[in-house]
Order: sequence, then structure tokens, then C-alpha cells
Amino acid sequence: MVNFAIVGYGNLGKGVEEALLKKEDAHIVGIFTRRDPQTLKTQSTPTYAYETLFEMKDQIDVAILCGGSAKDLPTQTPELSKYFNTVDSFDNHGEIKRHKETVHQNISDTTAIISVGWDPGLFSLMRMYSKSILGSVESFWGEGVSQGHSDALRRLEGVQDAIQITVPSKEAMKKARLGETDLKNKHKRVCYVVSDRDDKDALITEIKTMPGYFLGYETEVNFLTQDVLRAKFPDMPHGGFVIGSDDASVMEFSLKLKSNPKFTAQVLVAYAYAAYRMNQEGIKGCHTVFDVAPKYLLDESDDIL
Amino acid sequence: MVNFAIVGYGNLGKGVEEALLKKEDAHIVGIFTRRDPQTLKTQSTPTYAYETLFEMKDQIDVAILCGGSAKDLPTQTPELSKYFNTVDSFDNHGEIKRHKETVHQNISDTTAIISVGWDPGLFSLMRMYSKSILGSVESFWGEGVSQGHSDALRRLEGVQDAIQITVPSKEAMKKARLGETDLKNKHKRVCYVVSDRDDKDALITEIKTMPGYFLGYETEVNFLTQDVLRAKFPDMPHGGFVIGSDDASVMEFSLKLKSNPKFTAQVLVAYAYAAYRMNQEGIKGCHTVFDVAPKYLLDESDDIL
Repeated sequence: MVNFAIVGYGNLGKGVEEALLKKEDAHIVGIFTRRDPQTLKTQSTPTYAYETLFEMKDQIDVAILCGGSAKDLPTQTPELSKYFNTVDSFDNHGEIKRHKETVHQNISDTTAIISVGWDPGLFSLMRMYSKSILGSVESFWGEGVSQGHSDALRRLEGVQDAIQITVPSKEAMKKARLGETDLKNKHKRVCYVVSDRDDKDALITEIKTMPGYFLGYETEVNFLTQDVLRAKFPDMPHGGFVIGSDDASVMEFSLKLKSNPKFTAQVLVAYAYAAYRMNQEGIKGCHTVFDVAPKYLLDESDDIL
Repeated sequence: MVNFAIVGYGNLGKGVEEALLKKEDAHIVGIFTRRDPQTLKTQSTPTYAYETLFEMKDQIDVAILCGGSAKDLPTQTPELSKYFNTVDSFDNHGEIKRHKETVHQNISDTTAIISVGWDPGLFSLMRMYSKSILGSVESFWGEGVSQGHSDALRRLEGVQDAIQITVPSKEAMKKARLGETDLKNKHKRVCYVVSDRDDKDALITEIKTMPGYFLGYETEVNFLTQDVLRAKFPDMPHGGFVIGSDDASVMEFSLKLKSNPKFTAQVLVAYAYAAYRMNQEGIKGCHTVFDVAPKYLLDESDDIL
């Protein structure tokens, strides 16, 4: 039995609970939250206040950190990795190196694996295998909801709600399979916007010229009502492709996910076991997926080879 | 600069030479052969007798072993790993564990990575990632030439030449993507046979009932002339799919290879660098791809994450 703590209970924390309940050798010690623990509706797991974690230290083998990359993880992962083996899904690509160093400095006897998920995470691994073997690789995201772009739309004046769907270009994917690199126009950004503004044309221009988000991209803007929007996108589907190729070979990895947080949770759980096993073997400190030998993910390596 | 020795110069050795010539930081010390070194037509690399390896030990960082799994590698890998960092493509699935132990026992200061290629190798990794994250995985091979099955056909009386193409079942692949496991009838075996026998019907029955090769499989037998056969299959194309799925997610990895040995050679070269880097960090002994942290494949981990 491996004893897990779940820290945070949003979509990701719920996904981790669900994934752990399916594992025969997993015991969930509890869900730890900064909210009022009484208010959480869990599947069956007891809930505790965040601070209780430290009192229950001896009962916990790995803490799975399910907070957000913006506010929670930059402080929680270093703080908790001092006492617990941890995994997190820190996904601010530009800050991963700094996050790793901060967590590493705080550790003496534990094992942390950061930036676990599908990108960064599995997609990073596929880029690594492809780049090292074929010398080239291209990533494509979608078709799926981009949380960051949806948020950017929602911040516009007169926009009540919005979802942005990223669609990979079939033309660009074809080129990637033929070994072309430095591709342009790899994605189309399709916006679904609820707005009470009368000057829709001006709003469309505002969206299409938003630097860092839509400027320079093929962008399509659709307007609809709140009800239709939520009916159209009840889940958070996502996915993507990592394609490597040269004149003789094509390596392709793809993900089709009905629920982005559910899958990220499953990857977190797999690497939570790895953190535990690495710690047992004396491999301590802060790691990313690149530092984790695949054997730590499962006990049954020989059969799979 | 990393200094490589290529041991053996069949299709795989030629592929390794080609792959290394494209690397700016690779120096090929030489090709080492049990044949008469004068008779090899290399691209530009000097050739030496196999025994010369030991005299040139100090010039070599990694030896890439390109011999066959049946006769060469069971003795060469243990023998050479005593003195050199090595990689091999030992692909006799049932014997990998024993091969690993034998090689490991012979090592004191070097690093060996065995069973590198696409299966065992990359496909093993994908099965590991898929199994540990989604709990299930199915492998499909083809469309491509099966060397073992082609050889089995060629051993039949009155068969002058033959090629067996393995074709994955689209129906079974669809089921795998829907999360079904323990699939039956995953592959069709298509045989192209050159034979001077008159009783073709009897030969077809002989083929279809061959235990361990065709019995129990959907098998198709076509007859053609030697010229047509060699014109039809000038290369050794292969490939396949590793598919994992559950009720919400599909992970899929595929390879399309114009030349099986060329791609295997590229994987060997990537892991040859890994063996060198691991040895530099003091990680010695015999390993499979499961034991190799992905970071050892490339120097530029941070950018790829």
C-alpha cells in the first residue's frame, strides 16, 4: 500500500481522487484544502484543513499537489517538498527551471517531481525521443479548449463569457510528416463569445489584434448565447500531436482527451508512484519527467519490454 | 566529440554509419568486422579486424554493436561490455532478462544499454507510459516485412523465395481506441511466395497450418515470380501502433518506417550517446531503455520541456 495525500480539490484534485480509487495498492489518507474542509463533497475521502498535513506527516508517502501554477504551486511545492515526496503539474513553461531550483534547494530527504501532465509532461518526453532519434519534432495542440485564451477573451469589455478552441492545421501536420520544420500557421484559433455589445465588428477587430494571443494567428470569432455556449462545451476536451520525421521515418504521438484535468490527474498519479519508488531507492531532490527513468512508473518492467 | 566504434557492417551497421556521419559531435573511430576488413565498402570510415578493437580501446568512448541477436550479440555484448560502453539491439524478447544479467555480471566500470530499437525499445517505452497512466495498452505491428515469418516460408520445400507482410487489423485498432483489451485477430499475415511446386493448394495448406507462425492467424498466400517479388519489396518497410485508452482518453504512438534497419540504427545512436553520458555521471552496469532517464538522450532538456 502506498499512502497518498491530495492537496487541493478543484477539477484536478477530483481527477486524482478518482484515479487513486481505481488503484488496488493506493490508500488516500485525505484531501487537504485551504477552504473549509466541511464544504467539500468528496467521493468518500476524509477532508482536512491544509495545515493538518504537517501533523499527519508520518501517515503520508506522497503528497499530490493539485493547486494552480499561478498562485498555489510556486509556494506550496517548495514548502511541502521539505517534508513530503511530492508531484505537481506546474505548467508555466518559462518558469519551470526556476521552480525546479527553488524546490530542489528546499529538499534534504524527499523526492519531488514537478511539471507533470501532458504538456509539459508526456509531450515533452515525446519531443525528447523524437528530437534525439530523428533530429526534428513539431508539436500541435488541439482540437481543444485553451484556458489561457478563453480567459483573455473573458477579460475584454462587454464579454460575458467565452471559450477558445485551438484547432491544429491539417496542412501543417501533413508538412510535419514530410519532415518540414519551422512551420508557420500551425493552429487556428476559433473563438465562441457571449457579448452584449452592439459593435460586434469592433469587438472582432479587438480580438484579432490582441498581441500575444490572436495577432498573427488565423482567428475565427463566433457569437452565441450563454446557454448555447455551455451546452456546446460541457467538458474540457483537449489533445494534440507530436510529430517527428525525416526522409525515411515518421514518429507520431497523439492524445485525444475528453477531459483535460482528468488525464492530467492520471499522469500525476503515475508519477506519484515514481516519486515514492525513487525515494525508496535513495534518489532524492527535485526532478522533471526527463530525470525519471521509465522503470519507476510500474513494477512490471520485464513483461512489457 | 564522442568517439564511436561500429561493430558489424550489415544493414544495421550501415545505418549506424549513416546516422553518425550526420552528427556534428560524433567521430567514427572505425568499423570492426569478423569478415576481411578489406572487403567492406564503407562510406568513408576505416575498417579493422574485430580483434583490433581491444588495441584501440583508449580511442573509443562507445561501441555500437550491430550484430544479430541469434549468434553475435549473446557473446559479443558480454565480451565487449567488459572494456567498452556499449549499446546493442538484442531483440529476442524471451531472452532479454538473461542477456541483461550476463552482460551486467561482466561489467565493472562501463555502461551497457541493451535491447535498443523500436520493439523492443521505443514501443516498450510507449507500452510503459500507456500502461502506467491509462492502465491498458495494445501493440500492433505493420504494415511491414516480418523477417522471422519470411524465413519460415523460405525454409519450406519447393519455396525459392518469400516475403511475409504483417498487416494490422483496422477493426482491432478501432476496438483498442475504444478501450477494449485482450483483442483477438489483431493481425493479418500476407505471404508472397516464389515456388516451382505444382501442388500449390497443398503448399497453401502447409503454410496456413504452420504452428507458431500462421496457424490461428488470418493468412493470405500469393504466388509470384522472383523478379516481381524483389521489385515489389526493394526495402524493409515496417512500423506499427501502440494504443492505450480508457473511457475518456486515447494515447496513440505510431511509427511508419521506410527502412526498419535504418530507424533501428538511429535509435541505437541516440542511446549510444546516453550510455556515454550515463557513464560520465558514474551510472554503470547493464541497462534497458526502462532504466535510462530521458535526459541522457540530449543535452538540451530545458528547452524541450
